[in-house]
Amino acid sequence: MALIRSWVPGANDAESSFPLNNLPCGVFSCLGEAPRCGVAIGDMIVDMAKLERAGLLHISAEPLFDKPFWNALMAAGPSTWSRMRGRLIELLAEGSAEAREVAPHLVSMNVAQLHLPFRIAEYTDFYAARCHAENVGTMFRGAENALPPNWLHMPIGYNGRASSVVVSGTELRRPWGQVKHPNEITPQFSPSTRFDFELELGAVVGMPSQPGRPVTVEEADAMIFGYVLLNDWSARDIQAWEYQPLGPFQSKATATTISPWIVTRAALEPFRVETPTRQAALLPYLAEPRAMNYDIALEVGLTPQGGTETVICRTNASQLYYSAGQQLAHHTLSGCAMSTGDLLGSGTISGPDKASRGSMLELSWGGTERVMISGGSRSFLEDGDQITLRGRAQGDGYAIGFGDCSGRLLAALTDPYAREDGVYDACRTPRSI
Amino acid sequence: MALIRSWVPGANDAESSFPLNNLPCGVFSCLGEAPRCGVAIGDMIVDMAKLERAGLLHISAEPLFDKPFWNALMAAGPSTWSRMRGRLIELLAEGSAEAREVAPHLVSMNVAQLHLPFRIAEYTDFYAARCHAENVGTMFRGAENALPPNWLHMPIGYNGRASSVVVSGTELRRPWGQVKHPNEITPQFSPSTRFDFELELGAVVGMPSQPGRPVTVEEADAMIFGYVLLNDWSARDIQAWEYQPLGPFQSKATATTISPWIVTRAALEPFRVETPTRQAALLPYLAEPRAMNYDIALEVGLTPQGGTETVICRTNASQLYYSAGQQLAHHTLSGCAMSTGDLLGSGTISGPDKASRGSMLELSWGGTERVMISGGSRSFLEDGDQITLRGRAQGDGYAIGFGDCSGRLLAALTDPYAREDGVYDACRTPRSI
Repeated sequence: MALIRSWVPGANDAESSFPLNNLPCGVFSCLGEAPRCGVAIGDMIVDMAKLERAGLLHISAEPLFDKPFWNALMAAGPSTWSRMRGRLIELLAEGSAEAREVAPHLVSMNVAQLHLPFRIAEYTDFYAARCHAENVGTMFRGAENALPPNWLHMPIGYNGRASSVVVSGTELRRPWGQVKHPNEITPQFSPSTRFDFELELGAVVGMPSQPGRPVTVEEADAMIFGYVLLNDWSARDIQAWEYQPLGPFQSKATATTISPWIVTRAALEPFRVETPTRQAALLPYLAEPRAMNYDIALEVGLTPQGGTETVICRTNASQLYYSAGQQLAHHTLSGCAMSTGDLLGSGTISGPDKASRGSMLELSWGGTERVMISGGSRSFLEDGDQITLRGRAQGDGYAIGFGDCSGRLLAALTDPYAREDGVYDACRTPRSI
Repeated sequence: MALIRSWVPGANDAESSFPLNNLPCGVFSCLGEAPRCGVAIGDMIVDMAKLERAGLLHISAEPLFDKPFWNALMAAGPSTWSRMRGRLIELLAEGSAEAREVAPHLVSMNVAQLHLPFRIAEYTDFYAARCHAENVGTMFRGAENALPPNWLHMPIGYNGRASSVVVSGTELRRPWGQVKHPNEITPQFSPSTRFDFELELGAVVGMPSQPGRPVTVEEADAMIFGYVLLNDWSARDIQAWEYQPLGPFQSKATATTISPWIVTRAALEPFRVETPTRQAALLPYLAEPRAMNYDIALEVGLTPQGGTETVICRTNASQLYYSAGQQLAHHTLSGCAMSTGDLLGSGTISGPDKASRGSMLELSWGGTERVMISGGSRSFLEDGDQITLRGRAQGDGYAIGFGDCSGRLLAALTDPYAREDGVYDACRTPRSI
């Protein structure tokens, strides 16, 4: 697949994340305006609400884009997704007869603020990269018991907290929680001192499934609208104390940051690759009808407060042992209904070598080794650290990107129960979380 | 607290679940009508949408009740909840000057269909009854390790699946899943043979909390709108194989049945009792400002297909070691934001004696003992079995009830991947789940 050339500034630049081949979906606003759907192209955002209002789209009788979320378009189904992509390529391609009509509906990325691109219905986090499961398992249970016995037979997942999902750029606060030190008998109430990131890919479910009816891997793949980068922030000290026997809970609920752009499944089609060789045969319901993983180069940058960024991890989405299609098929196995806007985290995408580990827990081997960064070193994250995830699928003369997925960690509140006016007001809007 | 007498038929009957003291919130429809908010009283349902339209309520400038969910009323906040309760007592009390105006807006329960009373935002399930945790722990890990080390220090919880929550009366299908028998090395794909119920109380969160800001137990209590009965159906064989290391997933996702009526916190106020004596001191953030448990008698009936009901469990909500206020406060500890419509399951409410165990797993001690029922016996549930939960807080000459919370288990699909027309249609509405 080669670059599809566009008349939009920046779109044909080999370094751009947003060539015409990509067309990722986000929500944006300019100063004082209401957030609405937009599509990234080159250095610009297509104002989809205005394009629709101008009668240039012809893809739905109902308005789909003058909303602060992509859920309406997603719920309209795969044929509408295809029509949208086809029509946008027509309008934005070099030589388009309608370029002059479209041009007034482009907004410069520099002046736009980006918002959460879709309303998260429910959020599930998987554990689908083998190197990550082995690394964590070795640290927690020893090398012989690294992989749980079920791991090679099913994509292990757990339900996360949708209300914790935020868009790139949202600051987060180091959480308080229950932490038990190994040489103490009872837990302390204290800020987390082992706060971490997790490099993941998130699959965005566009089409719902029926309650009581599991879907095949092929049907699951067709339900997926697109993918985001996802940072599943984790408080390792809280996690270690709370996670037995029912799984991670508050350790994963402070925030989960996603990229501002949903890269559609259609844009990633040329980058499909096979999942890794199976060590144990999978049950037939997990059989993949074709290549279901993606070749997407991933990296993580750490920038200390006032410092410069160091890339601390380089890996690839093809490391996933279970594809998003397999995860989603497994998710419906007991009859669990999926909804438009469900988000499925892949699990931390660590690779086999040291520099490809997708969390501080692994990079610092449980805090026992220092990770060198520009001007210092880290075991876990320090106050003011910013983590930025990047993803790039490299085509022939073009690349598909997600936009930076970043978040800065603020210091813990001095007293999380202090009330400015002595009263807790649930309705007050916070400036950062 | 004594009975508040009402002019509505049946409301003063000592056996009624719905005296004027109760006023629980549900969603109903009659043949061909749209579902809308209603309040149960005696043998009738107050059509809240009609009452509001008739100008009899005076509690909000915005319409709150002509909707198929109670979320709008819940989001309006505690002072609106109080105004609604006060106004309804005024209108429905014996001697009310407005009885003649209200009477045309009452609907007989016999002709109404009940629907899910609120839109579930997210669903969390706790593990807060000590006898249940000890019973299950003993079966899974032996008597010495029955309680996990963290259990006496925090209300253990995990995120469940909101899309699986259904209203009483919805049939469910025995799920397929991965099951590994102890004497085999690899799992099978088969219908669950150890399908179970769990007797729980569910707390319904009315008011949201801010991201990044934990709430105290007192603030948490004030956020709770009311309570439902909750059956957290569980496939024990699927659970045993899948739950390590990240917790229950598909084993709990087939369905979770709730009662059709939300009993408000206000109605339960006279039934507050202290949580049990603490074996270990709790951290200050879990301190309870007053009695936070409720004295609610609970029972479970099992009715085989075509047979008669046997009550197989009698217990009390006061068995919970952690109150819903403590669960909710803990839920926000890491900064996790709560939303209007969040549902918190208490965990299975087993008591200390054999007849008070709230699941088949415990009643049959892991399937090793038969539970006698009218005309037979059970270890786990059989196809056609109906489980009915009931709850009753006994006042002076009146009682507060929830309505039956029941569901019937249908046989597993012969082939869960069979498509009637060869094509999976995610948009087709199922008749049962």
